[in-house]
Amino acid sequence: MDSVEELARRAKDASYRLQAMPATKRNEALEAIAKAIADQRKHLLDANLEDVRRSEAEGLSKVLIKRLRFDEEKVEESVRMLHSLMGQEDPLNKVLARSELDEGLILEKVTCPIGVMGVIFEARPEALVQISSLCLKSGNAVLLKGGSEARSTNEALARCISEAIIQVDAAFEGAVQLLSTREEVHALLAQDRYVDLIIPRGSNELVRSIQSSTRIPVLGHAAGICHTFVDKGADLDMAIKVCFDAKVQYPAVCNAMETLLVHSAIAKEFLPRMAKHYADAKVQLRGDVRTREIVPMQEACAADWDAEYNDLILSIMVIDSLPEAVRFINLHGSHHTDAIITKDTVAAQFFMDNVDSSSVMWNCSTRFADGYRYGLGAEVGISTNKTHARGPVGLEGLIIYKWKLVGHGHVVADYAGKNAKRYTHRKML
Amino acid sequence: MDSVEELARRAKDASYRLQAMPATKRNEALEAIAKAIADQRKHLLDANLEDVRRSEAEGLSKVLIKRLRFDEEKVEESVRMLHSLMGQEDPLNKVLARSELDEGLILEKVTCPIGVMGVIFEARPEALVQISSLCLKSGNAVLLKGGSEARSTNEALARCISEAIIQVDAAFEGAVQLLSTREEVHALLAQDRYVDLIIPRGSNELVRSIQSSTRIPVLGHAAGICHTFVDKGADLDMAIKVCFDAKVQYPAVCNAMETLLVHSAIAKEFLPRMAKHYADAKVQLRGDVRTREIVPMQEACAADWDAEYNDLILSIMVIDSLPEAVRFINLHGSHHTDAIITKDTVAAQFFMDNVDSSSVMWNCSTRFADGYRYGLGAEVGISTNKTHARGPVGLEGLIIYKWKLVGHGHVVADYAGKNAKRYTHRKML
Repeated sequence: MDSVEELARRAKDASYRLQAMPATKRNEALEAIAKAIADQRKHLLDANLEDVRRSEAEGLSKVLIKRLRFDEEKVEESVRMLHSLMGQEDPLNKVLARSELDEGLILEKVTCPIGVMGVIFEARPEALVQISSLCLKSGNAVLLKGGSEARSTNEALARCISEAIIQVDAAFEGAVQLLSTREEVHALLAQDRYVDLIIPRGSNELVRSIQSSTRIPVLGHAAGICHTFVDKGADLDMAIKVCFDAKVQYPAVCNAMETLLVHSAIAKEFLPRMAKHYADAKVQLRGDVRTREIVPMQEACAADWDAEYNDLILSIMVIDSLPEAVRFINLHGSHHTDAIITKDTVAAQFFMDNVDSSSVMWNCSTRFADGYRYGLGAEVGISTNKTHARGPVGLEGLIIYKWKLVGHGHVVADYAGKNAKRYTHRKML
Repeated sequence: MDSVEELARRAKDASYRLQAMPATKRNEALEAIAKAIADQRKHLLDANLEDVRRSEAEGLSKVLIKRLRFDEEKVEESVRMLHSLMGQEDPLNKVLARSELDEGLILEKVTCPIGVMGVIFEARPEALVQISSLCLKSGNAVLLKGGSEARSTNEALARCISEAIIQVDAAFEGAVQLLSTREEVHALLAQDRYVDLIIPRGSNELVRSIQSSTRIPVLGHAAGICHTFVDKGADLDMAIKVCFDAKVQYPAVCNAMETLLVHSAIAKEFLPRMAKHYADAKVQLRGDVRTREIVPMQEACAADWDAEYNDLILSIMVIDSLPEAVRFINLHGSHHTDAIITKDTVAAQFFMDNVDSSSVMWNCSTRFADGYRYGLGAEVGISTNKTHARGPVGLEGLIIYKWKLVGHGHVVADYAGKNAKRYTHRKML
């Protein structure tokens, strides 16, 4: 077994070959992966059955077993995703800006791959296919570590992908590599010489623990504690519809609402109606004093205001003003996604400008915060970082730029001292 | 004295007020700073004299004493910088993209401040003025820690700035705050709840040590080990002029050349001529075996190929091919700035596409890699990060974006299951 340092060095070498490759070659690789996954589906499904049986025997919860499954439907989904990704525009070698610094001295800012990604993801094996493909499309090499429950599936998928792309071109050797142990993850986090970005896809604890243990930049996804504020100027029918969707449509995900804030001016009219809908959907409600004066429910404790339930539980607070709602969200939220329901344009703009979250919404459900729904194509993840990439991140999160300067023997000395030449700094693009 | 956590919390509160402020107000603050610095120049220069005298008594080197000085010229420079920054376009609230997800459901990607910056900078006190101003222009709050040699100057400047902006508007309270001890820097690195980005401006060791000690993203600037490759197709007169400039014009900076690579096909003709120019400028040369066969000079040892001299020292190697030069640079360079001198367009493109550095140059001096020369206005620093911002970083490095979604009661449930509505995903901008 090679050391992680050796795997990382190999990934860096591969990344240099990838960045010099034309887009057609990178797309050929995606096509080869789609074909290999379809052709080897029996083998892949068998490997997954092994994981599922072992995990069932070990008593893994039904929810996690469901996430672990890689079945015919997941095969079709992966193939569709690959074809859609092939159809997307090449993100590399785009000129973002061009300017003349002086006559004959032209500066360009051009997109290029970041280099080597270290991706640590939990249960779902199809994430391996998605992330590898996003990396290849954007000219990056990747070192992957999946959840141990899915180890047979991950190994089968990684081998399938790796063999398929190397058959397209030997230059892909080392572009997609799988790590298998926790110790290897630890070693990976020390490879700041070779690895350019760590992408953890999993729990808040995983992300924070990784951020503490590496010099490498981390594209993190922290908790999703999302709020909806029903303003005094809300259309209450709309508020009921949107708040129901934000909590009930799929509560297990990070963009589901966890806390509902209701303006005191409409609380008496709104809360009883809203509570009835939630009761029908078996949502457990936890309220502050004023909420419970209007609708009897369990008392919310301090921890509830900072909780990510990922379940049919909702905390509710009555609030006296828009600025108070904004302050509450900035203090207790996770800067992921927060919404306001109101007919008042000024209130909505204040909310969207002042809530410090990656997605802010007006009169729609927080559940829309998602790469697919935003039309970004396949999604790297939803970043709660405030640098590099924020919110739903597609291919552009795997891209950076370099500066290219072309002269004709230009030297800095000519622009210094007496008789210094002046820069023209003429924007060309 | 307040705890660093309290200062950081106050900075975060200030950042929320700043992001809601119109550009005119932020520009007023810059104007007030310019006026205050000009008005209080006597006081500021006195504080600086105190630092200079103490540092001289403590035996600080002449180079560092020079960097420490804040004199009339620095006052004028700071005022000019502030006025130029006022004239720059507001970087906030720019719509980067707009799309229709479905009828009446409109998504915008809009620029906004990052939030709170933690900036740790070494000796030069004028950096305090520059960084504070860049942060205010871009709507960010900042916690600053300067070099201890400059403590009186830094305190005087920070007080001058802070008082000036609070007089413009009390909302600026807490927007610019100064830390004074190393222990406070340590505490600052733990404030990931309030601080969004750490910007160290100093040595490589400082940057790496900070990266190891914080969960907060770091906009780092590692070493500047820059190369120039004189290809076999080079115009040798141009090569001599450019290589002289890259080494000699100002050797103490990160974009100066440290290693010269020379194609073997032209080494015999080029090296003797080049060496003569360097000898005139008292550059100490260190060569590999083949270089020394052509021009007698000191032998380069292994450490020379990874050295950042920041001085009139240059290591020289004879190389047999362009791909070999690229490999050498990617292995030994610091991914900062590297140049090729050649008349061969194909060779130049290969070099610029394959050298993995933030700036790649063709037929010009590495010394051009700089925010001012690139026309970015005042400079945050030169980043060797591969994420967020790369190379010379101006205001755009202090900016991120948020997603704003506006609907009319749209819910995700309508786009799922049977009879699911389809997204239109129509690009509008």
